Amino acid sequence: MNVIPAQVGSTIDEIDTPALIVDLDAFEHNLHKLAGFSRSAGVRLRPHAKTHKCPTIALKQVAAGAVGQCCQKVGEAEALVRGGVRDVMVSNEVVGMPKLRRLAALAADATVALCFDAKEQVDAASRAATEFGVTLGGLVEIDVGMQRCGVAAGNAASDLARYIADAPGLRFRGLQAYHGTAQHLPSFAQRERAITDAASAVRTTIDALEHNGIICEVISGAGTGTFALEGTSRIWNELQAGSYVFMDTEYARIGGKEGGLYTEFRHSLFVLATVMSVPTADRAIVDAGLKSYSGEKGPPWVHNREDVEVVGVSDEHGKLKVGPKAERLRMGDKVMLIPGHCDPTVNLHDWYVAVRAGRVQALWPITARGASS
Amino acid sequence: MNVIPAQVGSTIDEIDTPALIVDLDAFEHNLHKLAGFSRSAGVRLRPHAKTHKCPTIALKQVAAGAVGQCCQKVGEAEALVRGGVRDVMVSNEVVGMPKLRRLAALAADATVALCFDAKEQVDAASRAATEFGVTLGGLVEIDVGMQRCGVAAGNAASDLARYIADAPGLRFRGLQAYHGTAQHLPSFAQRERAITDAASAVRTTIDALEHNGIICEVISGAGTGTFALEGTSRIWNELQAGSYVFMDTEYARIGGKEGGLYTEFRHSLFVLATVMSVPTADRAIVDAGLKSYSGEKGPPWVHNREDVEVVGVSDEHGKLKVGPKAERLRMGDKVMLIPGHCDPTVNLHDWYVAVRAGRVQALWPITARGASS
Repeated sequence: MNVIPAQVGSTIDEIDTPALIVDLDAFEHNLHKLAGFSRSAGVRLRPHAKTHKCPTIALKQVAAGAVGQCCQKVGEAEALVRGGVRDVMVSNEVVGMPKLRRLAALAADATVALCFDAKEQVDAASRAATEFGVTLGGLVEIDVGMQRCGVAAGNAASDLARYIADAPGLRFRGLQAYHGTAQHLPSFAQRERAITDAASAVRTTIDALEHNGIICEVISGAGTGTFALEGTSRIWNELQAGSYVFMDTEYARIGGKEGGLYTEFRHSLFVLATVMSVPTADRAIVDAGLKSYSGEKGPPWVHNREDVEVVGVSDEHGKLKVGPKAERLRMGDKVMLIPGHCDPTVNLHDWYVAVRAGRVQALWPITARGASS
Repeated sequence: MNVIPAQVGSTIDEIDTPALIVDLDAFEHNLHKLAGFSRSAGVRLRPHAKTHKCPTIALKQVAAGAVGQCCQKVGEAEALVRGGVRDVMVSNEVVGMPKLRRLAALAADATVALCFDAKEQVDAASRAATEFGVTLGGLVEIDVGMQRCGVAAGNAASDLARYIADAPGLRFRGLQAYHGTAQHLPSFAQRERAITDAASAVRTTIDALEHNGIICEVISGAGTGTFALEGTSRIWNELQAGSYVFMDTEYARIGGKEGGLYTEFRHSLFVLATVMSVPTADRAIVDAGLKSYSGEKGPPWVHNREDVEVVGVSDEHGKLKVGPKAERLRMGDKVMLIPGHCDPTVNLHDWYVAVRAGRVQALWPITARGASS
């Protein structure tokens, strides 16, 4: 059990570091912005819990209008249902009877669905649902350009949908049509082309389903980088964005519609770090490294400090270059870092420290931290 | 609380995935190889717990001849002392009274030391030790070429050593002289040059200490990439290698003395993953991504499968290219992945699943997982 990094009422300076901070003003701005967009676009919002891994946040999203949550792992679904979420969709394939039984067991307390891209997955899920006397929703994942999981659009998808519809204990719900790689394409024009192509794959599949008399309620997909495209497409009717509540440098760098940074949402997630060494005037070392933020998308950005840059990252340290225009950094100073990639960063922490007006307002447990099975 | 991935006696196929596997034969080979080297070189071995974060492994290292452990964080020291390790050195600066009090509290049950590179750190540690009525060992960290923390070699180091020696509650023990960046230099010749330079910085400092009549018991440093250099230098008398028990692709790629891969130690750490989708004959998707292994050193390698390669990594998925010479991968097949970087990979998991001859022999809790404060 790790030390809890703060108490409600603590000032920023009193927070033990490294700590994962949520700026509540920015977080709530993001929460309501996407909820408002979804409402006015007339699409359902089912935010992705793979990002936050926290039922407290899930319930806030539901209170703001979301229909439920999606997640990638059975362990995340367990944390969500235990935490009071009543509609959970695993936007992913689930393989192996132990996992499928855990998922079926949740369906006694919540509406539960999962995705398929092969008949043998359907057979196994049907067996688990039947054993537990429950119904699991089933979506066909189609490959809309990501070349990861998913069957081909059109007849292959329609055949699998029929197979799900006929399987005891399962109910065919619709299509999982998420284009993951499109989210991070570095220009709006590229993202638009990718989603246009994806839309045509979905349309082909809808036609095949209609031709075979299969009712398809849900077309689910979209992420933080493309939600406005799917949301106004009149094809997708459910949005799965997750990172929008937090943002990160990878999303900021994809660029907005008119160039510059992507500023649809505000940065609300930070790793708070402390200066632990100041060996030279132009170098400061902070106490947070690869075990406090993930590094595969490059070093974090330093928030709200002019001319200070993270130039080196190791397991437990961040090396800061303090430029000539910067205010000098002193031992014990606190620095807010914007992570490169929010999802794997969150997965390193046990608590969110929720902050407003310089004070800790709440501690939210990240109950699905490490729930990768 | 996450699901425990296996039971003692389970076969590999019964292990729930993703799971962190320790191959006991390879692990014990590594354990005894470095212990044997240290014994014959006449240097103390103080393996780094930042790698394994597990008192069970620490006690095995001590049983094999190590004098204790080093670690980077107070939370790791707490886990080690609670787990029965009786000599712990924090090879890092510790800033802030809350952390220093936690460390001082441990000194009632164990020999505890920490590193310094500034006088204000010494003042604070002295205060904490005095409050708790204990003695903390103190080492001066010198910069031997890494340009991270540490004072300059020579007189600056000697001044700080004197300051520690004079501080109530502290006892000057020696020098922390670790060259982190040297560990991963891509040729043996480069590593040798870096450690030669480091040795000269240490020698300068030893001379300054002697000149000032300060006794220096410990010269601690070295890692998995350079241990043989420091170990035979007649300067360092304590080795801090950590990754040697596990290895990873980053270490394998640094190259051996005669070129090729670096094969001083065997790969003993794996992420076990399950094939969850086989969309095409040449593509298989496994259920382990960036939340099960860290990605900043590139994708993991596939162990013991010809012509299968990880070509894409996302948060919860690994995309495998199955080449023409590969055995076909089927849904549910298990794959062993060698992580790019062992330390941050371990920090994602709650349990080691220790395996020998295809059976689970033990489950070791990673009690310092997430202990970054």
